[in-house]
Amino acid sequence: MSKLSEQDIEKKLLRFPDWEYYENAIHAEFEFDNFRDCFSAMSRIAFECESLNHHPEWTNVYNILSISLSTHDAGGVTNKDFQLAEAIEMIVEVQE
Amino acid sequence: MSKLSEQDIEKKLLRFPDWEYYENAIHAEFEFDNFRDCFSAMSRIAFECESLNHHPEWTNVYNILSISLSTHDAGGVTNKDFQLAEAIEMIVEVQE
Repeated sequence: MSKLSEQDIEKKLLRFPDWEYYENAIHAEFEFDNFRDCFSAMSRIAFECESLNHHPEWTNVYNILSISLSTHDAGGVTNKDFQLAEAIEMIVEVQE
Repeated sequence: MSKLSEQDIEKKLLRFPDWEYYENAIHAEFEFDNFRDCFSAMSRIAFECESLNHHPEWTNVYNILSISLSTHDAGGVTNKDFQLAEAIEMIVEVQE
């Protein structure tokens, strides 16, 4: 899995309006009705992470979930990050 | 629930060796064997948060969980934070 160029990342991000690229990672913030809904989404995302064997840096405060994705071994953003971002979008769309 | 003095916090922290006080909150970092174990602990902690109606700022990267506790309404650390810290310690001790 090789690191994508900034140009490739920006092009891919057109399909991911919730996500932004900076500091060598893609980032999104999601807001839910409350902590339960937020943590439920996190649980579903956690299963995706395990099945993709790819894990985010993510921070939660009550109903807010901030996620950063990058591929440590590649030193930047790869297709694996977009694969996980896509899975996250599917989960969040239902629950947000 | 009123904000504790720095002196009171430092005194209480003697019983919480994993925790440190800075920037108006108490903080701890826990390391697990892997993401599954880490997220399992997070799930158990999430239930405690709901039952105490008190929620952390917490960040996870793979097997590392960083937790910050403060009481927003009181503008600092209160007994509620120590109550949640104690519940977290009980959960983490089993799973770490």
